[in-house]
Amino acid sequence: MPSPVIKLNSGYDMPQVGFGLWKVDNAVASDVVYEAIKAGYRLFDGAADYGNEVECGQGVARAIKDGLVKREELFIVSKLWNTFHDAERVEPIVKKQLADWGIDYFDLYLIHFPVALEWVDPAVRYPPGWHFDGKSEIRPSKATIQETWTALESLVGNGLAKSIGISNFQAQLVYDLLRYAKIRPATLQIEHHPYLVQQELINLAKHEGIAVTAYSSFGPASFKEFNMQHASKLTPLIEDETINKIAAKYNRPASQVLLRWATQRGLAIIPKSTRPAIIAENFQSVEFDLSEEDIAAISAFDRGIRFNQPSNYFPTELLWIFG
Amino acid sequence: MPSPVIKLNSGYDMPQVGFGLWKVDNAVASDVVYEAIKAGYRLFDGAADYGNEVECGQGVARAIKDGLVKREELFIVSKLWNTFHDAERVEPIVKKQLADWGIDYFDLYLIHFPVALEWVDPAVRYPPGWHFDGKSEIRPSKATIQETWTALESLVGNGLAKSIGISNFQAQLVYDLLRYAKIRPATLQIEHHPYLVQQELINLAKHEGIAVTAYSSFGPASFKEFNMQHASKLTPLIEDETINKIAAKYNRPASQVLLRWATQRGLAIIPKSTRPAIIAENFQSVEFDLSEEDIAAISAFDRGIRFNQPSNYFPTELLWIFG
Repeated sequence: MPSPVIKLNSGYDMPQVGFGLWKVDNAVASDVVYEAIKAGYRLFDGAADYGNEVECGQGVARAIKDGLVKREELFIVSKLWNTFHDAERVEPIVKKQLADWGIDYFDLYLIHFPVALEWVDPAVRYPPGWHFDGKSEIRPSKATIQETWTALESLVGNGLAKSIGISNFQAQLVYDLLRYAKIRPATLQIEHHPYLVQQELINLAKHEGIAVTAYSSFGPASFKEFNMQHASKLTPLIEDETINKIAAKYNRPASQVLLRWATQRGLAIIPKSTRPAIIAENFQSVEFDLSEEDIAAISAFDRGIRFNQPSNYFPTELLWIFG
Repeated sequence: MPSPVIKLNSGYDMPQVGFGLWKVDNAVASDVVYEAIKAGYRLFDGAADYGNEVECGQGVARAIKDGLVKREELFIVSKLWNTFHDAERVEPIVKKQLADWGIDYFDLYLIHFPVALEWVDPAVRYPPGWHFDGKSEIRPSKATIQETWTALESLVGNGLAKSIGISNFQAQLVYDLLRYAKIRPATLQIEHHPYLVQQELINLAKHEGIAVTAYSSFGPASFKEFNMQHASKLTPLIEDETINKIAAKYNRPASQVLLRWATQRGLAIIPKSTRPAIIAENFQSVEFDLSEEDIAAISAFDRGIRFNQPSNYFPTELLWIFG
């Protein structure tokens, strides 16, 4: 069965279950996207920073060519990298990203992080990453979030993006953005799993009509390869006893329980896998319901622990970014 | 001995040990301020919202009249309440606050919270609190933080404030403000105690030359009367065994250890008491040094637990404000 949809404040329907493209290797990205479309996925969550938009686009093109799907049935998401926050850099990079995908509009385009960094010429280094020189130097830009958001609003005006949104924003910055936004963000994408519930931020988004997309739904598992302090200290959620007891009750894998906990509470999800069986399994995670009691038991895991700040790729001067 | 000072980016010296006026009852505020000046305090940290600026100003006036201190030896801090964020509301309310204090400039004036709410006429209700109608209704204003900050910059231009700063801002909003600020914030005031270290935010402030003032240095103790969940579950820091072992080593009260842990790491503090012995004791907390080892042991208490969000005075729609 197809994914349920969430009605965005922009008027468009967004699939609630999508496929996340972070860390999908270039060598397999095309096949993985093709496989995911076969499994029923229609939303693909990409970004300039993931460095695989060309290959993902090839998978989409092949699926369209083979008649699996039409472009208008897909919901393709991408994100603006930090080095393109200056107003005049936004449209050119979106056009490059669209060309990489081989499409002429994004269904949703997000500010990836609320951190304006100095422009890096894509001809010199792409994707540019966090450091100006690719190694150590951070150079902030003078672009305000208002300047960048206004540039994103223009994308809607000229048809390059159907909807626009934000990612990794803290509540205070969301509230401030809502003071000046002419087009309100359709979605807010955040790290969200039982160890990091962020209920107040979700409440704000709900109150303001902004849909929330959860990334890293499995918690520490998404970050184990980064050798981070938190991720190695905590029990992986899919191995946790309580989660597995709940999973056994429904005769479902723990991973589906973690995903269903998010979607049943109204959030969109974007799990990733490169294994066809798991790709299908994640997509089918909406095909059962948890009891309110079990949802509450999972929510009680909250410890306010954020994993997406691995210091081995993250510049020390910017470690504050997630608060 | 007088308080050490912190050199602000505005060029002014700020006493590192000040006196916090939150929750100082109107009936005793004048005497408490007078007593604190006698004990050596020169910095007083007030706010429109504390509802005691008239009485605090009376204490200051009496101390000046009695020759204890001159105005220019004092460092008087106040804060802009949420309902006065609209640009045209800033200067009038600052003038009212100055009149309440009986002075003609603030040494430091802060945005109290990054939450713009609709104007409430001070003739109708003052201080206005969080709710438009004083009971249940929240009405946001359209003022951006940039609009409000620009209005604060004008206060420096016309001499109503020597320095300006921010309070209760998360890192992302600080970074965004630094994109457009013509005058950089001199200080950032935040909740800070061993249970809530916020090291990344402090690192950002340090990196950007912004002094940090810690409030609620004793942690849950500052909030016990609000009957909050967190505050009642945790051991009060001044009763904690580890803190008291460290305190015994230096033959100092636990409260001085908690304050010294902050000042030795470069932060300003604003403890409050109404008991003369404690007022003096807090002021003298800079008169000894903790070992690096003991500082690290206290920093290890960090649990990311924030107390300043008591739901019994805080509107549910704004519970996100602290992230």
